[in-house]
Amino acid sequence: MKIKVLITGGTIDKTYKELAGELSFTETHMVDMLNRGRSMADTLSEVLFLKDSLEMVDSDRAFILDKCQACDEQHILITHGTDTMVETASYLAKSLKDKTVVLFGSMIPYSVNNSDALFNLGMALSAVQLKPSGVHIAMNGKVFDFDKVQKDKSLGIFIDA
Amino acid sequence: MKIKVLITGGTIDKTYKELAGELSFTETHMVDMLNRGRSMADTLSEVLFLKDSLEMVDSDRAFILDKCQACDEQHILITHGTDTMVETASYLAKSLKDKTVVLFGSMIPYSVNNSDALFNLGMALSAVQLKPSGVHIAMNGKVFDFDKVQKDKSLGIFIDA
Amino acid sequence: MKIKVLITGGTIDKTYKELAGELSFTETHMVDMLNRGRSMADTLSEVLFLKDSLEMVDSDRAFILDKCQACDEQHILITHGTDTMVETASYLAKSLKDKTVVLFGSMIPYSVNNSDALFNLGMALSAVQLKPSGVHIAMNGKVFDFDKVQKDKSLGIFIDA
Amino acid sequence: MKIKVLITGGTIDKTYKELAGELSFTETHMVDMLNRGRSMADTLSEVLFLKDSLEMVDSDRAFILDKCQACDEQHILITHGTDTMVETASYLAKSLKDKTVVLFGSMIPYSVNNSDALFNLGMALSAVQLKPSGVHIAMNGKVFDFDKVQKDKSLGIFIDA
Repeated sequence: MKIKVLITGGTIDKTYKELAGELSFTETHMVDMLNRGRSMADTLSEVLFLKDSLEMVDSDRAFILDKCQACDEQHILITHGTDTMVETASYLAKSLKDKTVVLFGSMIPYSVNNSDALFNLGMALSAVQLKPSGVHIAMNGKVFDFDKVQKDKSLGIFIDA
Repeated sequence: MKIKVLITGGTIDKTYKELAGELSFTETHMVDMLNRGRSMADTLSEVLFLKDSLEMVDSDRAFILDKCQACDEQHILITHGTDTMVETASYLAKSLKDKTVVLFGSMIPYSVNNSDALFNLGMALSAVQLKPSGVHIAMNGKVFDFDKVQKDKSLGIFIDA
Repeated sequence: MKIKVLITGGTIDKTYKELAGELSFTETHMVDMLNRGRSMADTLSEVLFLKDSLEMVDSDRAFILDKCQACDEQHILITHGTDTMVETASYLAKSLKDKTVVLFGSMIPYSVNNSDALFNLGMALSAVQLKPSGVHIAMNGKVFDFDKVQKDKSLGIFIDA
Repeated sequence: MKIKVLITGGTIDKTYKELAGELSFTETHMVDMLNRGRSMADTLSEVLFLKDSLEMVDSDRAFILDKCQACDEQHILITHGTDTMVETASYLAKSLKDKTVVLFGSMIPYSVNNSDALFNLGMALSAVQLKPSGVHIAMNGKVFDFDKVQKDKSLGIFIDA
C-alpha cells in the first residue's frame, strides 16, 4: 500500500531558533520521525508549505485538496496545525470521497521535550492503512471522522463533536 | 470503547540501572507514554510480569491468554518483547477468536534516546480500535495478521511471512 | 563549600506552553538539572524572578545585587538570559568585590531538544568553586571575566571583548 | 589555551545496540557533546580505545600516560569509566606532575535519557582550564584531587576519601 504524506506545517514541525529565541519553521521532521519509528511502510513525503494553521487561508486548503486529488495514492496522511485542522478536514471532505485521508499534528513540537508527535504519527499511519475512504483526524489516542470532532481549545484536546 | 492494556515486559520497558550498569526492569512506562501522547482513549493498564521475551515460557503465555479471556474488554493491547512476539501471537490466536488483540513492543527502550516505543504504541492503539477480531502485531509502521508476519532477526524488523 | 544559586529566568528556564503555543516561564528547572547531574555540591537555590533578560531593568539588577550581598555564601551562581548577561555582570562587579560570582544561561531552553543548559550549568558550577573573587561568565565552554567578554548576537556566542 | 581530550570509553560513550539488545561501544559522542554545549574551547579529541573501565589493564593505563606525556598540550581531559577512574588517576599522578589532567565520565550513558554526561563534561572542561597542575576527577558536581576521592559503589557517587 502506497501512502502519500503531505506536510503543511503546524506545531509538530516547529523548531527552536536560538538567535531569534522563538519557535518557527525551517524544515520538516517527518523523515526523522519515520526513521525513528523504524517504519517500513511505503510512504512518500512532500512538503506543500510550512505554516501555522491559524495563518492558513482558503487558497492553501485548495492547494492541499489539489494535491490529494492529483496524486496516485489512495491513502494520504496530512500533517497540520491543530487550530484549524477540523476546518481543513471539512473542506477536503466536501470533494474527496474515494480516498482515505488522515490529518494529524501535535500539541508539542517534535523538537521539544515530551512531545506527542511520534505517538500521533503512529496513530495516523495505522489509521490511514485501516480506515475506509473518507477524511479522518487522529489525535489524542483516537481516530475521529471529520464531522464528529472538535478541538476544545481551553483544554487543548480533540473531543467528539 | 474500553481497551485493556496488558504489560509483559520486553525491550520497551527496560531502564538503565546505573549501579549495575545495565538495562533491566523496574516498572512499566505505559502510563507515562499514554500521558505523553495526550491519549484520551479509555485504556486500563495491568502489569502481568516484566520479562525479556526470550525468557518467556508456555505458562507465561497461558497466563496472558487467561487474562485476555477473563477480561471484560473486547479490545486488548499487549506489550511484548520482539524476539518471541510472533510465537505468543500464534499461541493466543489458537484460542482467542472473538476479541481484537494487538501486540507491540520496541527495538529501543522507551528510556533510551531515539526510541521507537511511542510510535509503536500509537500504531498499536490505533489498530486495536480499528481492526476486526483476531490477533495482530503492530511494528515497523505496519499492522500484520499474526500468521502473516515474521521477525528478521538479522535486520531487526518485522516483515511479511 | 556552600553555594547560593540565584534564579532570574532567561532562555534556560523557558518551557513550551501547549495551549498558548509558545515558550514562557512557569518554574525553574534548576533542581531537576542538579539532580540529573547527580550533583553532591552544597547548593541552595532561590528564585528571584523569572524574566527574559531583555525585560530586566535596573531595579531587577539592584535586587540581584542585594541578594548577592545579603547572603552568607561566598560563592554564588546566577542563571540569567544571555542578551543582557554581560550588562548585569558589570553592574554586580561594581559593588561585589569579595565574593565569587558566576553567571550563566543557555541558548536553547533546558526543556528543548539539544539544549546546552546542562553543559553550561556544569561549567558554571565548576567555575564558582575554582575561581577567585570576582564576577565571571561561563558560556560556550569558557569562563570569562566580566570585563573581558561580549555576546556576538549575530552568532549567538560569547567571545573575548 | 589548547586542551587535549583523550577518549578511553566508559559508560559515557556506551550506545544501545538494538540487534544485540545491549549497551556497547561503537564510537565516541564527544564531538556531539561539545557541539551541543556550543563549546568554543580549543579542544582536540583523540580516541585511545573504547573500554569498560573494569576491563582496563596496566598496559592501557601506560598507553594513556604515554599519550598525556607525549602531547604538546598542558591541559588534558580524559573520559573514563567510573569503576576504576580513581585507580587510573593515581597511576597517572605518579608520573605526571606538570600538566593539568581532569578525568570524568558518567553514571548514565550520554545516549540514555536523563544522562549526567553533559553536566560532567561541563564540570571537567571548566576545571581543566582553572585548576593548577595535577591530576583531578570531576564527578557529582565536584572537582576532587586524585588522592582525596573514592567511589562509593553502593551509592554510585564519588566522595571525599
